[in-house]
Amino acid sequence: MSLVLEDTAQDLLFREAHTANTFSDEPVTEEQIQAIYDLVKFGPTAFNQSPLRVVLVRSAEARARLVPHLFEGNQAKTAAAPLVAILAADNEFHEELPRLFPAFPQAKDAFFSERAAREQAATLNASLQAGYFIIGVRAAGLAAGPMTGFDPAGVQKEFLDGDHTPLAIVNIGKPGDDAFYPRSPRLAFDEAVTTV
Amino acid sequence: MSLVLEDTAQDLLFREAHTANTFSDEPVTEEQIQAIYDLVKFGPTAFNQSPLRVVLVRSAEARARLVPHLFEGNQAKTAAAPLVAILAADNEFHEELPRLFPAFPQAKDAFFSERAAREQAATLNASLQAGYFIIGVRAAGLAAGPMTGFDPAGVQKEFLDGDHTPLAIVNIGKPGDDAFYPRSPRLAFDEAVTTV
Repeated sequence: MSLVLEDTAQDLLFREAHTANTFSDEPVTEEQIQAIYDLVKFGPTAFNQSPLRVVLVRSAEARARLVPHLFEGNQAKTAAAPLVAILAADNEFHEELPRLFPAFPQAKDAFFSERAAREQAATLNASLQAGYFIIGVRAAGLAAGPMTGFDPAGVQKEFLDGDHTPLAIVNIGKPGDDAFYPRSPRLAFDEAVTTV
Repeated sequence: MSLVLEDTAQDLLFREAHTANTFSDEPVTEEQIQAIYDLVKFGPTAFNQSPLRVVLVRSAEARARLVPHLFEGNQAKTAAAPLVAILAADNEFHEELPRLFPAFPQAKDAFFSERAAREQAATLNASLQAGYFIIGVRAAGLAAGPMTGFDPAGVQKEFLDGDHTPLAIVNIGKPGDDAFYPRSPRLAFDEAVTTV
């Protein structure tokens, strides 16, 4: 075995995990979400900038405001999921940098004084964190249903502000009946990895 | 406990894992990298588009070509790391979509006929996969040193082509002496997560 991580954990996080398209009625608790966050917050980002912001859509009122902004094929499952999380990048993350990266508090001004540089960094690093978040949902024994099929301008206007860019929406819960599509093929190692 | 993943696995992947800044001389084997890829390839992407491409910089000649494109503070550690991986997004991933997403082979033309749409999707989804990859490196008992401090145009010209965008460079190996900076603070749950 070339990996140290136990087989059961490999299965839980990657091999046996699938994007869920239906969910059971079992609620996702605040404790579960806090435990997920308190685990995945340690995932690395550049200068520890940690630009991911999460909006948990819990109320029926908020869910009704969200669903119309999703592509039609994503609406029914999102309406029925126990919990929905909007994952967004905070393009003004640099305001927190002196606290988050005390080793080099000048990074805020040295690298991120321009909005365009901040947006690019925030999108990249919040997307990394979105990957960690999906792994964290699975670490809680829950299924994730990440989606990019939505109107970003509509979601931003309804739930965020001009400084926050929505990246993905994730349905979260225990899988329901017929939750999974068949596993799609993956690229072979040699198709994705080259050596120089 | 609100998580299902064993404590030892939580520690390995997140809590006890740190970005390494020095490495031991122990090599990273091809078997380890293949095992990492064969695990993290299962992480979800939109339409299973799987746009991450990895260039493993193994030869001394290639290492010498890479190092000058890194910011000065990243050069010495990258020169000394047992293995360096360039993580890039394939902006022409759609060519593989009919094979990768057989459930809806029309996605290639329906959603990704325009280069701008492909680039945006490739950056987001390859960044998600970069997050999975970093977790995979840790699953192999190795330390990752991800960096965005490099000249993307230089790295692209030297190692990729116009269809591939470099996103991050990751030093990989067993940690060496004084490998870790002190853990930087993370945002509290309520600073990063809101509920509506």
